Amino acid sequence: MTEYEVYLSGEIHSNWREDIINATESKNLPISFTGPVTDHDASDNIGVDATGPEEKNFWKDHKAAKINSIRIKNGIESANIVIIKFGEKYRQWNAAFDAGYAAALGKSYIVIHPEDFTHALKEVDAQAMAVARDEAAVIKILEYLTLK
Amino acid sequence: MTEYEVYLSGEIHSNWREDIINATESKNLPISFTGPVTDHDASDNIGVDATGPEEKNFWKDHKAAKINSIRIKNGIESANIVIIKFGEKYRQWNAAFDAGYAAALGKSYIVIHPEDFTHALKEVDAQAMAVARDEAAVIKILEYLTLK
Amino acid sequence: MTEYEVYLSGEIHSNWREDIINATESKNLPISFTGPVTDHDASDNIGVDATGPEEKNFWKDHKAAKINSIRIKNGIESANIVIIKFGEKYRQWNAAFDAGYAAALGKSYIVIHPEDFTHALKEVDAQAMAVARDEAAVIKILEYLTLK
Amino acid sequence: MTEYEVYLSGEIHSNWREDIINATESKNLPISFTGPVTDHDASDNIGVDATGPEEKNFWKDHKAAKINSIRIKNGIESANIVIIKFGEKYRQWNAAFDAGYAAALGKSYIVIHPEDFTHALKEVDAQAMAVARDEAAVIKILEYLTLK
Amino acid sequence: MTEYEVYLSGEIHSNWREDIINATESKNLPISFTGPVTDHDASDNIGVDATGPEEKNFWKDHKAAKINSIRIKNGIESANIVIIKFGEKYRQWNAAFDAGYAAALGKSYIVIHPEDFTHALKEVDAQAMAVARDEAAVIKILEYLTLK
Amino acid sequence: MTEYEVYLSGEIHSNWREDIINATESKNLPISFTGPVTDHDASDNIGVDATGPEEKNFWKDHKAAKINSIRIKNGIESANIVIIKFGEKYRQWNAAFDAGYAAALGKSYIVIHPEDFTHALKEVDAQAMAVARDEAAVIKILEYLTLK
Amino acid sequence: MTEYEVYLSGEIHSNWREDIINATESKNLPISFTGPVTDHDASDNIGVDATGPEEKNFWKDHKAAKINSIRIKNGIESANIVIIKFGEKYRQWNAAFDAGYAAALGKSYIVIHPEDFTHALKEVDAQAMAVARDEAAVIKILEYLTLK
Amino acid sequence: MTEYEVYLSGEIHSNWREDIINATESKNLPISFTGPVTDHDASDNIGVDATGPEEKNFWKDHKAAKINSIRIKNGIESANIVIIKFGEKYRQWNAAFDAGYAAALGKSYIVIHPEDFTHALKEVDAQAMAVARDEAAVIKILEYLTLK
Repeated sequence: MTEYEVYLSGEIHSNWREDIINATESKNLPISFTGPVTDHDASDNIGVDATGPEEKNFWKDHKAAKINSIRIKNGIESANIVIIKFGEKYRQWNAAFDAGYAAALGKSYIVIHPEDFTHALKEVDAQAMAVARDEAAVIKILEYLTLK
Repeated sequence: MTEYEVYLSGEIHSNWREDIINATESKNLPISFTGPVTDHDASDNIGVDATGPEEKNFWKDHKAAKINSIRIKNGIESANIVIIKFGEKYRQWNAAFDAGYAAALGKSYIVIHPEDFTHALKEVDAQAMAVARDEAAVIKILEYLTLK
Repeated sequence: MTEYEVYLSGEIHSNWREDIINATESKNLPISFTGPVTDHDASDNIGVDATGPEEKNFWKDHKAAKINSIRIKNGIESANIVIIKFGEKYRQWNAAFDAGYAAALGKSYIVIHPEDFTHALKEVDAQAMAVARDEAAVIKILEYLTLK
Repeated sequence: MTEYEVYLSGEIHSNWREDIINATESKNLPISFTGPVTDHDASDNIGVDATGPEEKNFWKDHKAAKINSIRIKNGIESANIVIIKFGEKYRQWNAAFDAGYAAALGKSYIVIHPEDFTHALKEVDAQAMAVARDEAAVIKILEYLTLK
Repeated sequence: MTEYEVYLSGEIHSNWREDIINATESKNLPISFTGPVTDHDASDNIGVDATGPEEKNFWKDHKAAKINSIRIKNGIESANIVIIKFGEKYRQWNAAFDAGYAAALGKSYIVIHPEDFTHALKEVDAQAMAVARDEAAVIKILEYLTLK
Repeated sequence: MTEYEVYLSGEIHSNWREDIINATESKNLPISFTGPVTDHDASDNIGVDATGPEEKNFWKDHKAAKINSIRIKNGIESANIVIIKFGEKYRQWNAAFDAGYAAALGKSYIVIHPEDFTHALKEVDAQAMAVARDEAAVIKILEYLTLK
Repeated sequence: MTEYEVYLSGEIHSNWREDIINATESKNLPISFTGPVTDHDASDNIGVDATGPEEKNFWKDHKAAKINSIRIKNGIESANIVIIKFGEKYRQWNAAFDAGYAAALGKSYIVIHPEDFTHALKEVDAQAMAVARDEAAVIKILEYLTLK
Repeated sequence: MTEYEVYLSGEIHSNWREDIINATESKNLPISFTGPVTDHDASDNIGVDATGPEEKNFWKDHKAAKINSIRIKNGIESANIVIIKFGEKYRQWNAAFDAGYAAALGKSYIVIHPEDFTHALKEVDAQAMAVARDEAAVIKILEYLTLK
């Protein structure tokens, strides 16, 4: 039986990760999950918390983003599948960055986004192995991929 | 003397590419430039123009984006430097996608964006070799990099 | 002792996979097996089942084939050996595609096909590490490769 | 301006290569073309012609296919774009093999095939950047990709 | 939960490795550690001890350094994170060499060094994902990266 | 503690593999070993045994060597260290081939050979991480590399 | 005849680069040279010159080092040979970093350093293809490598 | 038309390289050739000539072989085809090493050797794209591969 490691990228202010993880666990699918740190405050402040304060917001963000990249990069590189959710809010450039990163590594990724993002996300969708509207579609795909 | 091939990614509704190209040409810098097709209509319609109409906008966009990816991918992969401009308008997920793609390939890239995008672009900026506010800064960097 | 992961590609309307798996299990060979989803209907319909209906058969097939490629690609990339069976029926272009994919990755692959396909499959055979007429030959090779 | 090297794979018993080459030359597109040896007899016999006769057809084919692979592999690996035509005749497993080879290398490829091959070629089409019905579509795409 | 393998490079005449290992163990972080042989005499003499004496110090050092490189290279290549400490003493070119090696492989690395090395280590710091003053900062980062 | 997978290449008509394996086992070193099939007859005949007889010795050898390459290639590619012994007898071109293969992959390898082969093996030795006269030296190196 | 691109890394406060370039030019050797920007002030200030001032020296250095890395990285990656000079002055961690970077890419590099650095540079020397005491030795090697 | 760079490895005490080069030049084939330094004395002594004398022959050979490896490695890595001749004399382990190196890089190589080496060279032949008895066969293959 095929086993998968799945990296869950994108939106961090909803429970979509838990919905997918819980559904696949209740079905006993042979899948393990990784993802970024989803504690928003901890994520924004880890740079200055660990290596000292910065006066400019640019460097505060810079130091945090680099530390976060250690986890993101390791997660994507060891994953068999990357799932990227674009939600309704925020600019979410990091989600598109992760998609580009996965594409260049030749990783299969699946995108979740509302229909009205179709034109704006066409380059991201073009390299995806599936474009889903919701988590239910992704769960169906994961169940299919792990069929005996 | 070092020669560079530079791929210009991002914003397509202003003349920023020409500004950089003209400045480097007037300084005789040993740099050649590539980039995406910047004719917006041609770019959106190439899929249906070449391989037939689609009823759903999703597939129209999909076919166009895939054909465009041929040029974008070849451009980034053969470039020594990628320069990515995030302008004030639109969602520009393709620009962030290109940044992620370049990062995963280990390509050095430079980002141009307004200061108020600092927090939203922190993951993109974190892997950049320089973050510039305008084309003048990029021209200065290119001139420096090609010093004898 | 050497352990192998073997990906079984090609023909899906006979029991050749089970024959190989059962024989190696009865001999306690240290080999695990992966392969594509072999439920033909599920495989053809997973695209529309998961992400909605399509009017054109092209897009129905397209969506299914992309989702299947997630499993196929992960299977070939993590395999030590790929075994590809060309049977008497159908065009089997996907089997030849898998062979080319394995070859480009530098994966060792073994082909099973009837003698009368010799000329038509010469390019596929040329990069194979063995060309077998039946499963018995493959089982003999796997037994040999896992000798202490 | 972007320049491309294009490898033309697949059908060898029609003039489709010349049609594409002539059209792009008459438009002065910055494209160079490579492809396999298309002299069918020379291609089948090069193995025994160069390194001596074989009694078994298998080895005659094997030696020829390996020598041909030198040119095919170098052509695909140095190409920016691979174009693969599946015609009405023969099994054309080598064309599908080339597609798989290109896909694994991350090369952008375009497929040309009649509509009735849609289901049989779905795995090949799934990784293609465009699926065309004829050479005219490919010429349109090449002209678009080389726009200034 | 994400698990990491961390390679500890650099200074060998203090207990900084043990400090990090003990702290992460007491917090039950899912991290395993590797590093070079830190027995200084054994490390300097392994070449001549194993394969015979040399009259020139150059070859004595050469043989030892090559054998040590087996462990160092394997450690860096299989690590998820490399941590490199530059202490107050010695030239520590091997630490900078390890940083360059990690950078070229695309490995995320973290540097620990005193503030007065800032200018001299700017090239090493430029490719680091974090620059820390002490082990406490590194422990904070490792704890953050392994948050559930 | 560092763990290693070691591939033992070269001479097959003496007990040198067992000597190394037994010594490292008695010292409880965290090392696992792989290697080619060392049953000489089985190795020479596997091609014809599995896929049918050949009149020419060339093809008999060819088929056997390709099947053996599956195990050799997988062994070298997954190894952390390759150890290659050149004994007094035979031409041993396969041992030199394995050394070149390991070198191109960037694998650390150790060579064992008598002193009088020094000039003839200079290219093989030049890329080695150690050149030993006997198994005792290799055992000393392995013990050193796995020091806590 | 073989042609080479040579990257000259390390010491920037002497004329060693010119000595090598002039000697090879006077001998008409088919070699082109690249290297970092050797204008010390320009190199230290390019970050703040191009993208604005920084209060902390760390960020001033950081921005400069990243921009310089664009040239250094492109230079090493496209070079056939890297030559790295360690002089008597300064800590020269960037030279050791370049050596590690070249080693991980599998680039052949040659080191120039005084004899008393032998022990401190043993890890750098261990992966070098030659260790020279002066430019004359390097010129002799380059002349030899480009023999017809 | 396809152009090739061909690296000529192996035997250095006969004129086989010139025979191939002259024949392809007289036919105006679009092929350029590279190879090792074939001045035997210069090749053996370059190490001590450039970087000083050694008392042990091992280190004299070692230094020479490493310098030679710069040219060999660059030659094989940039070649489209590697041709390796095993002659009647000497042990020629370097030729087998080059074959293994080429194989691991996925380079197509052609072997020339007398029939009585068949069994001893079976592993080298197994990964070759052609096995020839003489230069005439190789010239025929090169002429074929460069057919328009």
